[in-house]
Amino acid sequence: MQFSPLLEQLIEALRCLPGVGPKTAQRMALHLLTRGRDNGKRLAKQLNEAMDHIRHCDHCRVFSETERCEICTSTYRDHHLLCIVEHPIDVAMIEQTGIYKGKYFVLLGRLSPLDGIGPEEIGISKLKSHFSQGIIKEIILATNPTIEGEATAHYIAELAKTFYIKVSRIAHGIPLGSELEYIDSHTLAHAISSRGIV
Amino acid sequence: MQFSPLLEQLIEALRCLPGVGPKTAQRMALHLLTRGRDNGKRLAKQLNEAMDHIRHCDHCRVFSETERCEICTSTYRDHHLLCIVEHPIDVAMIEQTGIYKGKYFVLLGRLSPLDGIGPEEIGISKLKSHFSQGIIKEIILATNPTIEGEATAHYIAELAKTFYIKVSRIAHGIPLGSELEYIDSHTLAHAISSRGIV
Repeated sequence: MQFSPLLEQLIEALRCLPGVGPKTAQRMALHLLTRGRDNGKRLAKQLNEAMDHIRHCDHCRVFSETERCEICTSTYRDHHLLCIVEHPIDVAMIEQTGIYKGKYFVLLGRLSPLDGIGPEEIGISKLKSHFSQGIIKEIILATNPTIEGEATAHYIAELAKTFYIKVSRIAHGIPLGSELEYIDSHTLAHAISSRGIV
Repeated sequence: MQFSPLLEQLIEALRCLPGVGPKTAQRMALHLLTRGRDNGKRLAKQLNEAMDHIRHCDHCRVFSETERCEICTSTYRDHHLLCIVEHPIDVAMIEQTGIYKGKYFVLLGRLSPLDGIGPEEIGISKLKSHFSQGIIKEIILATNPTIEGEATAHYIAELAKTFYIKVSRIAHGIPLGSELEYIDSHTLAHAISSRGIV
């Protein structure tokens, strides 16, 4: 391909987006130049503002423009209940369900000693100081059901118990609306051994 | 979903990219904030520069930062031969083959009266002035083999003939490496009726 230098640079820069390869980046760049220059300028402005001004909430570490996020400052939310998740997107997913009315804490990762991610990197010291205030009565561990996610959940559960906080873990099993035929055997085995009495 | 206002605005702005829906835009925004703030800033800069400085070559209408593009100013290219395409991307695709050494003209569209796109919108007056200079000996019509593309090719062919310019059309038929089983019947019918003597 032979494009003008600026166009080549734009295509290269677009590749930083997840899931965007050379062909998609090229299509995006040409689309913006042909039909969306205003949109391109607006995107540049929003990118700049977001990269410069979005930070983590001091309290729960979710993305926020202010020192404390909306959820942390809300007086309508149950501050005795704390849901612990790995990523900011998980907060959005749980909020979407509309069922949870407690507060959150985002680890921004999970324990992974091989990658050099220990308790300090996932904010355990901050979490400990929250626990020590004696306001939290129950934590819900909503880390992902992967090996690292489980290890992280176990680590935090042990920590919370030293503060006499009730610990729960979100339920794992067959997703609603799916068919047993397509479920992996690990999940199915877990669903059988964790069956509930009806 | 409940994100901070700036984050919501970034997600909305990312949706101007082709093929990017709400979920993908959200994933892109969170990815940039989590792992790629430098990349995000660089993308903003390249977007701004590209949107501001990339224009169309005065001569052939391909994307260029200069008044005349590299191909138009090149002395190594055959200026008796003109390949006419619909979009700037088509120039890149033909350049990639490495077989074509003539010049180009980009229509930036195709005749489509129902959408209000007539000869003026696709630069026919500029093309006419190129023809009238008497330098071009042959044009290769490389518009897409769609109804509008064929109509556009036919229109330009008629125009070129009034200037006694030789007119050719890129070949249509079975793509190399494909199997007849998977080819649509229109293409197959065309390939049979346009068969070449070997």
